[in-house]
Amino acid sequence: MATADLFQKITALTDANRDNDHIRIYIDSNASIPDRTAAILEGGADPVPAMADSLRKLESCGADCVIMPCNTAHYFLPRLEVLTKLPFLSMIQAAAGACRRRFPGKTAAILATKGTLSAGLYQEALAAEGVAFLVPEAREQAALMEVIYQGVKAGASPERYREAFCSVTDGLTRRGADCFVLACTELPLAVRSLGLDLPCVDPTGELAKAAIHFCGYSVKEK
Amino acid sequence: MATADLFQKITALTDANRDNDHIRIYIDSNASIPDRTAAILEGGADPVPAMADSLRKLESCGADCVIMPCNTAHYFLPRLEVLTKLPFLSMIQAAAGACRRRFPGKTAAILATKGTLSAGLYQEALAAEGVAFLVPEAREQAALMEVIYQGVKAGASPERYREAFCSVTDGLTRRGADCFVLACTELPLAVRSLGLDLPCVDPTGELAKAAIHFCGYSVKEK
Repeated sequence: MATADLFQKITALTDANRDNDHIRIYIDSNASIPDRTAAILEGGADPVPAMADSLRKLESCGADCVIMPCNTAHYFLPRLEVLTKLPFLSMIQAAAGACRRRFPGKTAAILATKGTLSAGLYQEALAAEGVAFLVPEAREQAALMEVIYQGVKAGASPERYREAFCSVTDGLTRRGADCFVLACTELPLAVRSLGLDLPCVDPTGELAKAAIHFCGYSVKEK
Repeated sequence: MATADLFQKITALTDANRDNDHIRIYIDSNASIPDRTAAILEGGADPVPAMADSLRKLESCGADCVIMPCNTAHYFLPRLEVLTKLPFLSMIQAAAGACRRRFPGKTAAILATKGTLSAGLYQEALAAEGVAFLVPEAREQAALMEVIYQGVKAGASPERYREAFCSVTDGLTRRGADCFVLACTELPLAVRSLGLDLPCVDPTGELAKAAIHFCGYSVKEK
């Protein structure tokens, strides 16, 4: 669903008036890629061979750049980049840059999987942009994993995870968070389903804009 | 956006609880395919070479069946089928079958592009299913083309095309339509954006279900 969300955002954000004004997009929605967090933290199956298979397919279609709508997958980016001459656009860098531009001087809370957090992907990127940040406490992180895995990925009704999600954002706000980086691609879907109006950065949307610019197209003005 | 809609519907309708339960989907969102209605009615550029290019790419990725989220494109299906051994699932047949099952004994109105209508794609399929049908009058058809091209495809605000769309469905209802086949992939998007509660068949959703069944997966119960 995260891939469909990215595709939809690229289409909606491209300044286009007819079918032929759009970017050509190849997608391999490869459900056989093993869970990324499990691979990072629990010695689960290595996702790189399946990701490399997708990469070869997109390459042979004729793609000019590669984007991955999974934050945790960016942990494996260095191993993928050596397999291809195609440039990858990083959703982590796109989101960290947007965070600095949109919330200058503010403190961001990183909402992500355990895999993304323990790999330090966002901590590093936000520090490089000079953005102060917080991460969830252990209990909050466990609640967030429930929201992601038993909530959004499982297709549960938003009311099943509203309380858990809001307890996490409330706790982080009390500890000083001014805005939220929705650093797992299920979370922009959760925030939309819950109808929440949070100050947040959506890495999927930022990656969509980065891809539109890379391909030489313009982002539509609201 | 129609392709993103089909992708989203396949994902939402697949009975899955985690990423790895989903169908692998290859997409070539090929914006360079010439306009299908213009090709059928006005001697516009032939879309088949660009469609064949997409077909070859999906084939080389390893697809087991092919689906096209464009009703009008089905006019060219016989010319595409001879180019591949892969089966195409027809969204026209999927929608006509759903119309018979869901609205037995009722009269369906076909809302489609001029190209789809003049090719008789839905008239033929509904007749084969024994479903009575109506088509828009010339003035209604012109209004519908505006909704599709200057409204949805151009990314216009739904309020810009609400009156035009509702005048078409009101006229058809007065002439005896019991339900509507949203036989252009922009129209399910229009009906959703307008928040209308019409008795209708969504060919994109029916094609999604046909693909899920073909791939040996189950459709999620509501």
